[in-house]
Amino acid sequence: MQFPKEVTIIEVGPRDGIQNIKKFIETKCKTGLINDLSRTGLKRIEVTSFVHPKAIPQMEDAAEVLSGIQKCKEIRYCVLVPNKMGAKLALEARAEELTFVVSASESHNKSNVRRTIEESIEEFTEINELCIKHDAWLRGSIATVFGCPFEGRVEPQKVRDLAEKLIEKGAKEINLCDTTGMGNPILVRQVITEIQKISNDINLAVHFHNTRGVGIANILTALSEGVSTVETSIGGLGGCPFAPGATGNVATEDLVNLLDDMEINTGINLDKLIDCAKRFQPYVDAKLGEHVLYAGPTYSSYSTECSLKLNRIKEDCDV
Amino acid sequence: MQFPKEVTIIEVGPRDGIQNIKKFIETKCKTGLINDLSRTGLKRIEVTSFVHPKAIPQMEDAAEVLSGIQKCKEIRYCVLVPNKMGAKLALEARAEELTFVVSASESHNKSNVRRTIEESIEEFTEINELCIKHDAWLRGSIATVFGCPFEGRVEPQKVRDLAEKLIEKGAKEINLCDTTGMGNPILVRQVITEIQKISNDINLAVHFHNTRGVGIANILTALSEGVSTVETSIGGLGGCPFAPGATGNVATEDLVNLLDDMEINTGINLDKLIDCAKRFQPYVDAKLGEHVLYAGPTYSSYSTECSLKLNRIKEDCDV
Repeated sequence: MQFPKEVTIIEVGPRDGIQNIKKFIETKCKTGLINDLSRTGLKRIEVTSFVHPKAIPQMEDAAEVLSGIQKCKEIRYCVLVPNKMGAKLALEARAEELTFVVSASESHNKSNVRRTIEESIEEFTEINELCIKHDAWLRGSIATVFGCPFEGRVEPQKVRDLAEKLIEKGAKEINLCDTTGMGNPILVRQVITEIQKISNDINLAVHFHNTRGVGIANILTALSEGVSTVETSIGGLGGCPFAPGATGNVATEDLVNLLDDMEINTGINLDKLIDCAKRFQPYVDAKLGEHVLYAGPTYSSYSTECSLKLNRIKEDCDV
Repeated sequence: MQFPKEVTIIEVGPRDGIQNIKKFIETKCKTGLINDLSRTGLKRIEVTSFVHPKAIPQMEDAAEVLSGIQKCKEIRYCVLVPNKMGAKLALEARAEELTFVVSASESHNKSNVRRTIEESIEEFTEINELCIKHDAWLRGSIATVFGCPFEGRVEPQKVRDLAEKLIEKGAKEINLCDTTGMGNPILVRQVITEIQKISNDINLAVHFHNTRGVGIANILTALSEGVSTVETSIGGLGGCPFAPGATGNVATEDLVNLLDDMEINTGINLDKLIDCAKRFQPYVDAKLGEHVLYAGPTYSSYSTECSLKLNRIKEDCDV
């Protein structure tokens, strides 16, 4: 296995992380989180979703969030759009980067955006025209790539065909999403190999939910297959409201800690990231993080604190 | 990456899983769990630890547990021993397979068994003689292989040298343990490559704590390097009482679910395993499982229940 020297993490906590939280989080808390995240070294952040407020009330302040954050010029901020109306609103709110989502399985697409895949692709084409007009960058995000909670297995060829259409219609990046954590490293390799048959030029991103504990292993497989853009969520928050059983994302701090250990550069300051998660904890009802947020970074096992513990242990042993 | 066609899982829940639980679990609950586990298809189970009751009160009924279980002849039951006294008691209680534990780092060995590594190796030699007399099988389990909570990095050569000594002194299997979840796939490959320099004949097992979320990825790396014996704990329970920050093991049900998905045979019935965990939940204060126990196996996404959900979704969409 060969890994890339650098990995770009797209933080999706402010969008995917909180979209499923019932209690409305005040706009200023959301912008506060994004401003905090902007100071960690992250280069890309998905900040909100221009979705109908009836579908996801938590995202009803999408325009306010986008205009309310302090934008750093070296960071790319993107927003999710499920349809043309969302794209129009996003562009009106001066979004510069849009993520359009379509599922690889008909039933999840119907459940998620109430359209057939074909209808979503038609809309994508129109959205691309709007993006060209507004000089905005458009990504194609494919849901249920590694399995669908309604249909089960999704054939890699089906994902490839959909990716091919999205690229034809103008997608600048393809994001492969394991919406309910059904992927495994063998399948991840199969799907990425299929997609690479279309084009080696298109940038691929991956997004794995940790529903069944395989998120990090799937990310590492994707990295070893040449992918170097990964979506994760601070504190592991997240889950699709329209996919039964969908639970949290891979936690950004867990991935950054691991990549630090493997000497793969992310440009992210892990301590600042952990502080972000801790400051955001009071605003969400779920407990943030399960691993690094609780155990501390691996490097902390090499610190002064550790030596102190060691001395105490030595004294105990001498007794 | 190539994976083995079959993997043997050693279930360590009854030992590592519960040793850190403060409230004493009645002997009949422990034997009940082991009897349940014996019916899942598991081939190897670590059932208890012959450790001083003052050190780990939860294990004070080790002899009663070992004699109280209904042994199946196709299952190998082993017990952990930290020293010669433990080994004597285990052999008196008719243990047929012993796991002796020694750390790769001096400070953890002192903290864990109050001995230098050299002293532990001497004791191992004596235990091996006892085992030969009693026709028992002896494993060498090495703790803090991938990092020490007191010392930080542990050099792979140091682990290799220790493994070499244990093999010389009679170890039939070497078990590489990531006691506090400090390993990563690059390090795992380095350590296994080092150990394979000694001998390709000795059976290697691995034991990864999921402290920082990398347990499954580390297991898959070990499998791709030729290891096919893995220790995990039902419900992800576990953690070393003498290693600060040590948290749960990789959950057996998460690993079995993944290996099922990857068509790697374990011989274990995942549904029975999940039932085991659910039945044992009332006896432990911690919440068992975080992934498959909550989300269900991947294959359940292909079931009738799923189709029903799909039909409901379709009806919703038609409205």
